[in-house]
Amino acid sequence: MKEPSRLVSLMEIEAARPLLESHLRRTPLVTSQQLGDMCGVRLRFKAELLQKTGSFKPRGMLNSLHHLDDAVKQRGVVTLSAGNAAQALAFAAANLDIAATVVMPQGASRSKAAATEGYGARVLLHGGMHDLLPKVQQLQRDEGLTFVHPFDDLQLIAGHGTLGLELLEHGPAPDLVIVPVGGGGLLSGVAAALKQKRLATRVVGVEPEGAAAMTRSLETGKPERIEEVQTLADGLAAPFAGEHTLRHVQRFVDEVVLVSDEEIAAALRLILERCKLLAEPAAAASFAALLHGKLQVTPGSEVVCVLSGGNVDRSLLMTLL
Amino acid sequence: MKEPSRLVSLMEIEAARPLLESHLRRTPLVTSQQLGDMCGVRLRFKAELLQKTGSFKPRGMLNSLHHLDDAVKQRGVVTLSAGNAAQALAFAAANLDIAATVVMPQGASRSKAAATEGYGARVLLHGGMHDLLPKVQQLQRDEGLTFVHPFDDLQLIAGHGTLGLELLEHGPAPDLVIVPVGGGGLLSGVAAALKQKRLATRVVGVEPEGAAAMTRSLETGKPERIEEVQTLADGLAAPFAGEHTLRHVQRFVDEVVLVSDEEIAAALRLILERCKLLAEPAAAASFAALLHGKLQVTPGSEVVCVLSGGNVDRSLLMTLL
Repeated sequence: MKEPSRLVSLMEIEAARPLLESHLRRTPLVTSQQLGDMCGVRLRFKAELLQKTGSFKPRGMLNSLHHLDDAVKQRGVVTLSAGNAAQALAFAAANLDIAATVVMPQGASRSKAAATEGYGARVLLHGGMHDLLPKVQQLQRDEGLTFVHPFDDLQLIAGHGTLGLELLEHGPAPDLVIVPVGGGGLLSGVAAALKQKRLATRVVGVEPEGAAAMTRSLETGKPERIEEVQTLADGLAAPFAGEHTLRHVQRFVDEVVLVSDEEIAAALRLILERCKLLAEPAAAASFAALLHGKLQVTPGSEVVCVLSGGNVDRSLLMTLL
Repeated sequence: MKEPSRLVSLMEIEAARPLLESHLRRTPLVTSQQLGDMCGVRLRFKAELLQKTGSFKPRGMLNSLHHLDDAVKQRGVVTLSAGNAAQALAFAAANLDIAATVVMPQGASRSKAAATEGYGARVLLHGGMHDLLPKVQQLQRDEGLTFVHPFDDLQLIAGHGTLGLELLEHGPAPDLVIVPVGGGGLLSGVAAALKQKRLATRVVGVEPEGAAAMTRSLETGKPERIEEVQTLADGLAAPFAGEHTLRHVQRFVDEVVLVSDEEIAAALRLILERCKLLAEPAAAASFAALLHGKLQVTPGSEVVCVLSGGNVDRSLLMTLL
């Protein structure tokens, strides 16, 4: 049963904070004068790659799980993921004493599958990306598990929104916040938080050219599916935008811009060399947009790029250096 | 003229703080539950690789320069370095409006020389490591410059000590602090701060097997020079211990242990993969000692490994992955 379409309120985001604060970290805002000078702005990175599980995802997952009925919690939950959402669901479920199953494709990275099992979840490796949803549906029928959506869920968006509130609580208020876009859950939450709390902050999303589902959806005005996904940034490889996320982006986001794989890789290298932070390609996309002039910036303005995660396989990293 | 030998007091370290706070960052303590579990302790990293210039060195350099006479400041300062001290002196001098010259070997990394020039220092590339000191002495004679020692100076040690005080101000007080040792300046400062402020914290230094000048000096009781330095950790490649640093280590440090290059590389990879932080080999040495059981630890105790810097060339990083 799909929730009726509505927008997440600031109160819902604020309500998520005590729960999240007891399980997660408040990640630092790291200034980079060098990279800021390169772009003509005052630049800080929200180092969410230092979050537990190595990405922002447990923020939303914890809040989603928290709002489930007790009966649902007792039967257990299931999601599908090749990456960060798998570890995040496993982590969140373990923290809330809920049994979790994650369906991952056979080709999923061994280290991510192992990390997911390490948090105590049951991992089922099953077929390719297109085989995951049928498997999840089978588990819903056979075992009574409840599906937790990896990005298109209102409580999930509210949980992600807590990251936006944190940007207003240290140092100068940002004039511009740049956020990577996969399915759009993080961007929706951060934009909802910022635009309801401080209208003057501009919020821009960044998609890879090879996975531009949100851009297409904004053009047509409805959630679009793209046939072929081709991007270095596996964390942004969602092949469609969500209904909830599209509505939040339409309402709260100023602009969504595109970056190429080469631009992402260049940004990743600079963040690693100059800031000593390992951003995964999805995370580096936010800085790539700034670095390569994909959006207009006011010289000297306060800019925050959200580094959404740092889970990158060593073999991939070697090819990027 | 050499300063008479004495120990740095807690008051001197505390006195350095206001100066440093206006120019530097307070770097975060980052918890790693995974790596802590691997070692059976509660583990945090002092992420000093997020410090300005990418290492701890400007702490001491700023304090050293601050205490020079005005006439000396006006004539300018000079140091020799192939690495982090070059950038740190240049940064500190620029912040205090002092003209700085850095003599670097011809083979110094272009990026480090460029970064040093970027802070406004004059860089002289001159011969090999053994040709640097004669060149510095010539500049002292010809231009009236004052030599700033890269590690064996009391005000420098006091400046580095501020890092030790910060370890007592967030979260639980550490039972054990592990610090890398090159010339011994950082270890001296951190140990002086901790042992004068909180005696119960154990302080252990870590040297590479191929550059064990401090270990040898502790054995003989006087500063020793080693003939051949062979280590991956260029930041720890000082070929001798200082007089001041040896005295501080003798008085305030509980133990100095050795690690191999392979152990350093393994630690570096784990810190990058699990914590998303790029530690240079010198910095990874602290965790290498813990990871490879080079010292006794009490199960469940609070341990801090100091990640002293993150300046590692991309080409070297590629060989380490």
